[in-house]
Amino acid sequence: MDERIEIRLSGSGGQGLILAGIILAEAAILDGKNAVQTQSYGPEARGGASRSEVIISNASIDYPKVSKSDILLALTEEAMLKYKSNLLDDGLLIIDSSIDMPDGPFKILSVPIIKTAQEKVGKTIVANIVALGTLVAATNIVSKESIEKAILARVPKGTEELNKKALYEGYNLVNI
Amino acid sequence: MDERIEIRLSGSGGQGLILAGIILAEAAILDGKNAVQTQSYGPEARGGASRSEVIISNASIDYPKVSKSDILLALTEEAMLKYKSNLLDDGLLIIDSSIDMPDGPFKILSVPIIKTAQEKVGKTIVANIVALGTLVAATNIVSKESIEKAILARVPKGTEELNKKALYEGYNLVNI
Repeated sequence: MDERIEIRLSGSGGQGLILAGIILAEAAILDGKNAVQTQSYGPEARGGASRSEVIISNASIDYPKVSKSDILLALTEEAMLKYKSNLLDDGLLIIDSSIDMPDGPFKILSVPIIKTAQEKVGKTIVANIVALGTLVAATNIVSKESIEKAILARVPKGTEELNKKALYEGYNLVNI
Repeated sequence: MDERIEIRLSGSGGQGLILAGIILAEAAILDGKNAVQTQSYGPEARGGASRSEVIISNASIDYPKVSKSDILLALTEEAMLKYKSNLLDDGLLIIDSSIDMPDGPFKILSVPIIKTAQEKVGKTIVANIVALGTLVAATNIVSKESIEKAILARVPKGTEELNKKALYEGYNLVNI
């Protein structure tokens, strides 16, 4: 990766996407890159569409606002419909399988993130970590070593194994 | 990967999917795994849906017939419609963006393989190598070192750089 990559993580409030954005940015720092993470508050923090944005670059980041994103992760249909117009034409949309496939020029990866959190990890609340696993495994945007380290540094004590399992199940949704 | 993985590569005759299957199997061997590659001839070799099958395993492969595949790559809608019922429910379907999104329980990755071969590499004929790049980058089914080595050993002399470019553009369809 030689350039600036902009990632938008979206879903509903309570899905832990702000934490996911923070973890992703911290993993990029561990990889020796520059990263900026931002989130929007407002009505979104009380349900409805929520988003977190991360910019990762090898160079310093002068303009930290995501305009058109390279990658959009959407865990809800509402969030996807709201943000897909801001995805680059050659960007990558990663959506939960529960969401209807949209039309669009972009690349699409549809995987059962929420169901995997529920059924394979046993906790819907780790859908954000499953999503990070899928995003990292598919795009290589940060290294697997760094994302694991960043997750373990941020999750509540006592939940490390649960979150590691969520991460690995996220990898398994694309890596075989 | 600890188990047996079955991959079906499908499209129309002339898209080079048999060669792609051979290369994928040889890359698995370079990785120290076992692999079996098969293809079907018949009317398919004269246009229509064509397919090539690869089984990769850490153990010896006793039953070399792909039944339900873990991964289905389809470069044409006809091939996708013909083979998707043989994809495992939790399998991964990789389709060219020109194909309408199907319904199904499986995971889906939709990326512009043919357009990338045409426009970024300049030769439609290398769509098979772009497809291999995407398949390997997304799934890690074989290492990037081995797939590159296997491609360079099989493509016509003088086309090495073209095929390397096709491989890298295939990586870029998912890896960022």
